[in-house]
Amino acid sequence: MSHNPQKKPVIAVVGAGPGIGEAVARRFVQEGLIVALLARTEDMLQTMSTGIEADFGKHTARYYITDLRVEDQVISSFKSIKEELGPVEVLVYNAGARRVNGRSILDTTTEEFEGFTKINLFGAFWSTKCVLPDMLSASKGTIIFTGATGSLRGMPGLSSFSPGKFGLRSLAQIITREYQSQGIHGAHLIIDGPVDGKLIGGVTRRKWEREGEKEKLEEADRFLMQPTDLAGIYWYLYTQPRSAWTQELDVRAQKETMFSKL
Amino acid sequence: MSHNPQKKPVIAVVGAGPGIGEAVARRFVQEGLIVALLARTEDMLQTMSTGIEADFGKHTARYYITDLRVEDQVISSFKSIKEELGPVEVLVYNAGARRVNGRSILDTTTEEFEGFTKINLFGAFWSTKCVLPDMLSASKGTIIFTGATGSLRGMPGLSSFSPGKFGLRSLAQIITREYQSQGIHGAHLIIDGPVDGKLIGGVTRRKWEREGEKEKLEEADRFLMQPTDLAGIYWYLYTQPRSAWTQELDVRAQKETMFSKL
Amino acid sequence: MSHNPQKKPVIAVVGAGPGIGEAVARRFVQEGLIVALLARTEDMLQTMSTGIEADFGKHTARYYITDLRVEDQVISSFKSIKEELGPVEVLVYNAGARRVNGRSILDTTTEEFEGFTKINLFGAFWSTKCVLPDMLSASKGTIIFTGATGSLRGMPGLSSFSPGKFGLRSLAQIITREYQSQGIHGAHLIIDGPVDGKLIGGVTRRKWEREGEKEKLEEADRFLMQPTDLAGIYWYLYTQPRSAWTQELDVRAQKETMFSKL
Amino acid sequence: MSHNPQKKPVIAVVGAGPGIGEAVARRFVQEGLIVALLARTEDMLQTMSTGIEADFGKHTARYYITDLRVEDQVISSFKSIKEELGPVEVLVYNAGARRVNGRSILDTTTEEFEGFTKINLFGAFWSTKCVLPDMLSASKGTIIFTGATGSLRGMPGLSSFSPGKFGLRSLAQIITREYQSQGIHGAHLIIDGPVDGKLIGGVTRRKWEREGEKEKLEEADRFLMQPTDLAGIYWYLYTQPRSAWTQELDVRAQKETMFSKL
Repeated sequence: MSHNPQKKPVIAVVGAGPGIGEAVARRFVQEGLIVALLARTEDMLQTMSTGIEADFGKHTARYYITDLRVEDQVISSFKSIKEELGPVEVLVYNAGARRVNGRSILDTTTEEFEGFTKINLFGAFWSTKCVLPDMLSASKGTIIFTGATGSLRGMPGLSSFSPGKFGLRSLAQIITREYQSQGIHGAHLIIDGPVDGKLIGGVTRRKWEREGEKEKLEEADRFLMQPTDLAGIYWYLYTQPRSAWTQELDVRAQKETMFSKL
Repeated sequence: MSHNPQKKPVIAVVGAGPGIGEAVARRFVQEGLIVALLARTEDMLQTMSTGIEADFGKHTARYYITDLRVEDQVISSFKSIKEELGPVEVLVYNAGARRVNGRSILDTTTEEFEGFTKINLFGAFWSTKCVLPDMLSASKGTIIFTGATGSLRGMPGLSSFSPGKFGLRSLAQIITREYQSQGIHGAHLIIDGPVDGKLIGGVTRRKWEREGEKEKLEEADRFLMQPTDLAGIYWYLYTQPRSAWTQELDVRAQKETMFSKL
Repeated sequence: MSHNPQKKPVIAVVGAGPGIGEAVARRFVQEGLIVALLARTEDMLQTMSTGIEADFGKHTARYYITDLRVEDQVISSFKSIKEELGPVEVLVYNAGARRVNGRSILDTTTEEFEGFTKINLFGAFWSTKCVLPDMLSASKGTIIFTGATGSLRGMPGLSSFSPGKFGLRSLAQIITREYQSQGIHGAHLIIDGPVDGKLIGGVTRRKWEREGEKEKLEEADRFLMQPTDLAGIYWYLYTQPRSAWTQELDVRAQKETMFSKL
Repeated sequence: MSHNPQKKPVIAVVGAGPGIGEAVARRFVQEGLIVALLARTEDMLQTMSTGIEADFGKHTARYYITDLRVEDQVISSFKSIKEELGPVEVLVYNAGARRVNGRSILDTTTEEFEGFTKINLFGAFWSTKCVLPDMLSASKGTIIFTGATGSLRGMPGLSSFSPGKFGLRSLAQIITREYQSQGIHGAHLIIDGPVDGKLIGGVTRRKWEREGEKEKLEEADRFLMQPTDLAGIYWYLYTQPRSAWTQELDVRAQKETMFSKL
C-alpha cells in the first residue's frame, strides 16, 4: 500500500475515459477516496491521472493499463491495485464499447461482436471476481455497473453492444441476490440518453461549434447529461444507508427526447 | 398565504401516515420547506402536524383532511393549500391501500377493489391535475409517486392493490413524457420490501416484542427499511440537477430476502 | 340454457366491436362454440349477432347490452348468459377505450379518466368474478385479456388509457397466479400496433381511399394487423395443452414500424 | 442438395438434445420439413437422427457435429447444410448450458462463464449470420431462440447462464427490429419452468422412480412441461400469418409453482 500512505478507501474505475469515468473518479477523490483508473490507452490514463493529482494532491490517483478483453490483464491490474493501494471498497464498471455507427447483424464482424461483448460483459465478471473477496472480508463494498438504453431494449444497429449490456444487467442482479445480505451493495445505473463529452454529444457538439450553430449548442446543453451531475448519482449510491439500498435506477437529461427509452 | 409567512417552498404529502409519509414530511421541513399533510384521519394528522411544529417551529406543517377516493375533497384540499400556503413545488403521492390479509379475486369485494384502486391510482391523477398548473407556470416542480413490489408483479392476494399500483407507475411515466421538458421532474420510487413502522413490520415487530423474540427483532432491524432512510431518497430526487433526472428506482433493505421482487 | 340447445361450450366476448371482438367471436363459433356478445350499442350488437347467425346458423350468437362501467349491468348480463346459454368456458375481455386524439393529463377530464379506466380495468375485474366460479367447478376455463402497446409503456396523451391497461395486465397475472393450478388458463395478449378496421387503421384507410392513395393503402395492408389473423391467436391460446400454457405474448404486423413498442 | 432429394424446406435445430430439441425436430419433420441437427455429441446426434428416419422415412434428418463455442465449426456446419440440404428456412437456437448445481460468482470459473456464455449467446449470433443471407434472398425465414426464466431475472447461482440468456433475448429483439420488415420472423420463447426429460425433471424423476414415489411422479406429470407440447409452440410461431407475428411469449405447465418467474 506504498502508494496510499494515508490508507484512504479505494475506488476502482474500470473503463476510465473522459466523460463519466473521469467525473466519477474526481468526485470520489474529492470526497476523500483514492482512485485506481483502468483503461487501455496509456496517454489518456496518464493525462487523467496527472490532472486529478494536480487538482487534488499527490497520492489521489493511480492508473493501470488494462485491456478489458484479456482476463490476465484484469487480474494483474487488480493484484497491483491491492499491493499498491489496498483492498478495493468501490468498483465502478463503466466500460461500454461499440461501433460508433450502428451496423446490422450481417455487417457486424465476429471480432466486433466478441471484442465488444468482452468489454461490455466479461470484463465486469472478471473485475467483480477480483474485488469480491476483500469486500466480503470487510462485510462492506459497493459495485456499480453503468448501463445504457441498450441494456433494456435490443435496438437495431446495436448487436455488438446490446447483448453484452443486457448480460451486464443480469450480472448486477446476481451480485445483489448472491451478496447483498453479506454487505455488498450492487447497483445498475441506466444512462438513458446521450452524455456530454462522450461520442454522441462530443462529435455533434464539435461539428456545431465549427458551424457556429449557437441555438443547437444551447439546446444541446439541455438534452445532454453532464458527467459531473452523473457522478453525483454514483456518489449517492455509495452513501445510501444499509436500510435503503437501490439496485436499479435510470437517468436522463430534462430536455432529452431523442434517444431515451421513454 | 397567511399560514406561510416566510414564503417557504411547499411540499404536499398525500397519504401522510406514520412511516414514510411522516418521515418525508419531517425531512423536507428540516431542509426548509413547509409541508401540507393530506390524509383521512384527523387524529393522526393532528398528532403528526403538532409533532412537526414542536420539533421544527411554528408554520412548518399544516394538515388537510381528505378522503382520497373523493375527487371533490382532493380538489378542495389543494385549493386550500394554495390559498393558505401558496403553490405546491413538490408533490409526494404516498397513499397505498389494500386489505392487510391478501384475498383472492373471488374473495375481494367490489367495494375493496374500487375503493383501494381509487386511493392507489385515482387520487394521484386528481392530485397531479391540482398541482401541475402552478408547476408549469414556475417551470419547476417535482412529483414523486410511491410504488411497491406489487407495482411490477401481479402477485396472488393483491387484486385490490396491484392493478392500481401498476396504473400509478404508468401515470408516473406519462407525467415524465408529457411534462419533463417543461421543467417537471416525475419519478416513481419502488419500495421493494417491508418498511419498519408500516403494517408488516409493525404488526410482526409488536408480536415479537410481546413474545420476547430478541433475535428476530435484531434480524428485523436489518431487513426492514427505515422510514427516515427512505425519506432521504425523496429528498435526493428533489435535489437532482436538471441534467441528470431519475424517472424510476427501487429500494430495499440490505438483509431483505423475503418480500422483494429480487 | 334454452338458447343453447346443443349445449355447446360458451365464449363470452366482452367489448365486442367490429375488429378483434367480432373476429374472435366468428372464429370460436366456426370451431363449434356459441358466443355471447357484450357491448353497449344495441345496433352494433344486433348487426354482429345477425351476421354470425347468417353465416354459421341459428343458436350460434346472442348479445347482451352492457355498459361495462356499471357493475350491476355486467353482473346482470353474465347472469342472463348462464341462464340462457350455460356456464362460460372462455372469457375474452377485449374492451379498450380512450379518446381518439391523445390529450395531456391537464386536458383529460375526470369523466374521461374514470370512465375509460372503468372500461379498461374494472369491467374485467367484474367479468372475471362472474365467470370464475363455474370455471373452478369445471376445473377448466380460459380467460384472455387484450392488451396494447400502452400496457407496457405510459405514453404521452394516454393518461385515460394506459393506467387502466397497466392495471389489466396486473390482473391477468393475478388470475394466473391465483387460479392456474386449479385449471384456469389466464393470458394477456399485447396487440402491439394498429389493427385494420379499428380506429387508426379504419380512419386513415378511408381517408386514403377518398384521396386515391393506392401506394399508401397497399403499404397499410402490410403494417396493419388483420382481425381474423389475430383471432387465430386467441384460438391458439384456448387450445394450448395444459403442459404448456402461455401467460403473455405480443403481436404485430410484419411491416409495422410506426407504433409498436419495438 | 443431394441429401434433400424432395427439396423440402429445411429447419436447423441448434442444440439438438433429447427434450425440446428432438421434439421440435420431430414435429417439423412430421409436418413435411427436413431437419439438420447440430450438437457436439455424435452418439446422441446419431441416435436422434436414426430414430427420426426410422419413424418418418429416409432423408428426413441429418446431423452435423458442432461445438457451438467455436465459430469455425458453426460456419462449417451451416456450409455443409446448405450444400447437402439447401438453404435454411427455420432456425431454432435451442442450446442452453450451465452448471447443474448453481454456484456463486466466486465459485464460477472463467472457463465456465466464458464457455457457457459462448454456447448461450455467441453460437446464436454465428448461427444467425449463417442463415440470414438466404432468408433475406427468399424474403422469408423464421428464427426462434429458446429462453428461460433466467432470461428475465438474474437469479443467484446462475452467473454462467443468465447473462448469456439476457444477451440472447436482446439479440432476438435486434433480429426483429433489423429484419422483420424484410420478411424474417424473429421470436423469443421463454420456457418458464422445468421441462420433462431435461436435467431437472429427468434427474428428479429417475430418483423418484427408484424410490417408488408414485404421488410425486404424478404431481411431476402436471408441473413439468412436455417437450412435444412445447414443440407445438415452435410450430405455431412458424405458421403465424405475416399480419400477426409474435416476438416474445412465455410458457409454463399448469401446475408449475416452483421455478417460474410468476
